[in-house]
Amino acid sequence: MFNFDFYNPTRIIFGKDRLEEINKYVPADAIVFITYGGGSAKKSGLIDKIKNVLGKRNIHEFGGIEPNPRYETLMKAVDVVKKEKINFILAVGGGSVIDGTKFITLASNYNADARDLLKYGFMRIPFDVVGKVVPFGTVLTLPATGSEMNNGAVISYEHGKFPVMSELTYPTFSILDPTLTFTLPEIQVANGIVDAFVHTTEQYLTFPVNGKLQDRMAEGILQTLIEIGAPAVAEKENYDVRANHVWSATLALNGLIGAGVPQDWTTHMIGHELTALFGIDHGQTLAIVLPALLQVKRQQKKAKLLQYAERVWHIENENDEEKIDLAIQKTSEFFESLGIKTHLSEYGIKADEIINVVNQLKVHGLTALSETQDITPDVSKKILETAF
Amino acid sequence: MFNFDFYNPTRIIFGKDRLEEINKYVPADAIVFITYGGGSAKKSGLIDKIKNVLGKRNIHEFGGIEPNPRYETLMKAVDVVKKEKINFILAVGGGSVIDGTKFITLASNYNADARDLLKYGFMRIPFDVVGKVVPFGTVLTLPATGSEMNNGAVISYEHGKFPVMSELTYPTFSILDPTLTFTLPEIQVANGIVDAFVHTTEQYLTFPVNGKLQDRMAEGILQTLIEIGAPAVAEKENYDVRANHVWSATLALNGLIGAGVPQDWTTHMIGHELTALFGIDHGQTLAIVLPALLQVKRQQKKAKLLQYAERVWHIENENDEEKIDLAIQKTSEFFESLGIKTHLSEYGIKADEIINVVNQLKVHGLTALSETQDITPDVSKKILETAF
Repeated sequence: MFNFDFYNPTRIIFGKDRLEEINKYVPADAIVFITYGGGSAKKSGLIDKIKNVLGKRNIHEFGGIEPNPRYETLMKAVDVVKKEKINFILAVGGGSVIDGTKFITLASNYNADARDLLKYGFMRIPFDVVGKVVPFGTVLTLPATGSEMNNGAVISYEHGKFPVMSELTYPTFSILDPTLTFTLPEIQVANGIVDAFVHTTEQYLTFPVNGKLQDRMAEGILQTLIEIGAPAVAEKENYDVRANHVWSATLALNGLIGAGVPQDWTTHMIGHELTALFGIDHGQTLAIVLPALLQVKRQQKKAKLLQYAERVWHIENENDEEKIDLAIQKTSEFFESLGIKTHLSEYGIKADEIINVVNQLKVHGLTALSETQDITPDVSKKILETAF
Repeated sequence: MFNFDFYNPTRIIFGKDRLEEINKYVPADAIVFITYGGGSAKKSGLIDKIKNVLGKRNIHEFGGIEPNPRYETLMKAVDVVKKEKINFILAVGGGSVIDGTKFITLASNYNADARDLLKYGFMRIPFDVVGKVVPFGTVLTLPATGSEMNNGAVISYEHGKFPVMSELTYPTFSILDPTLTFTLPEIQVANGIVDAFVHTTEQYLTFPVNGKLQDRMAEGILQTLIEIGAPAVAEKENYDVRANHVWSATLALNGLIGAGVPQDWTTHMIGHELTALFGIDHGQTLAIVLPALLQVKRQQKKAKLLQYAERVWHIENENDEEKIDLAIQKTSEFFESLGIKTHLSEYGIKADEIINVVNQLKVHGLTALSETQDITPDVSKKILETAF
């Protein structure tokens, strides 16, 4: 097992009818900024319910944070935070709204060109760059990214998606009410399950370091997602299924399963380029890339792929290569069972566009991906061809 | 799944050669109080190493916190905290030292009779009783209780063991260096494994509430402990085995696997009386009580016992009652494989002393134990007779 640090101070408030807790954790004299997305939280009446709980506090609102939140949009919110002297932010939505809010709070406390904050990637932004933020809580409406219980964000700027992290960007609290997911469109539920699944495989399908518990927890999340995947998409108001979906998505990326073990993240990095270039949903891009990545890297990942085949898919009677084939096939079939297509060509992409993706990886310096840094642009090209 | 809150702000610093991190997380101008136990941390040179890292900070020491830390001992430390205006405490040791330190920090900020703080049990001490504490970190030397990443303590006073909890008693940081466990006596390693195992079963062997991930994580901890149990006792310097032991013990009681599911704790409550009356080690008391409890409550716990048999012990071809018998038998055999005896009579207790244990449960008001509150003193008696 590798040495590791684990720190996660976010308070999780999980279950039905928990909105009243906002009143306990937002200071009574706060000037509150409610951030949200395309308007469904507004239309559903959720924003009004939250304002009702906030009572006499001074409230400002900012809607319109888009999927894959854009720098330009977020900077408009930064202007409001500064002008109105906001001292608490409440993000109401899914990963895009929460990610965007993390950037808003950082950029509100940075007095130079905020594009600087996009350059740190997976490094944490040092305290001497941003040393304090406006505290924020979240009300989660879309289980997928885990942003509600971690310190990471992904921000879109021009044709790139940029990871942004700081030790200061853990939400103070997150309200996880599974009933808030009942009104989600099927495709968003399906994308959310794929996202949580691939967050887990990024931290699990690497090479073994005898992190027995990390492996078992990752396998537990994968098995749970497999069990609840189809029902979560089909049964809008199945509380227990949605509760397991929400909690799996949160724990898939709160730092715990990745503590002390190698991490890959190639699928996300290639996936980000597919979203940026072609507008394919984040979850869909992961479903396209992961099976192909596992195929191309099957020798380097052999030990963990066999463990995955045996423990997650209960494939036990075949030889090693057959086990791996079957595990990859079952992974694709699982995504497809949720209604998510797993081939690039099924999204209207042409074979000769693959080179554009590879070029964008080069532009963004992503030329040595994976847990072993051996995914060069040539290997990425092979993965994309395999995914075609 | 039940509604739940999860909050755990302790920073884990895990791995080899991490002591230097103390310098980062203890304020530079702190007046530091180092608390420790019987002296092995002193003799091994660990305390000196820590003092070296603390450098020029003003340091006071308090050794002699005993196993099952006693109120009277801890109150002597409280006097030092008040007199020396201590503003950071560093607990160096296992669960007893860390539990004791939690009580010290609470009692140092309570201005009436500190025995009052023993009366809250599993309720958190309200902020209007103790609203602030002296912050503290830990350096863990004995993996077992999970105290290094939770807010609970158990304090001994007269003939009782009293749970004490507060939202303020999470360690600020805990250094978990598996090499610090290399010098432990075998019995302490074995007791630690049993303790972590039974912390897990207390939160798992109850009744099902469709907490799929909590179940999978609990099963992951149990499977890990079963895999590393015998090697952890036999191989003093097997780093990976000890690393898995340490991390399993921490995660068994950091609040995660118990979030949103029923909890039992009968084994601990009866076990506490056995320690208080007969001085049997905490881990040993758990190994005595758990198999008997599972036998007596096999009908109420049937669904989870079958899941335990199948997923943890891979017992699949027998009928239901045989599965449960075999799972209980394997549990006892596992404890015995670590060198821990599982029957009361093997500890020199006489059959006619059982009634004294039952009487103590009554004295302490523990007359409706378990996740269904149906373990009356009569049922406790039956459990103890079964454990004889």
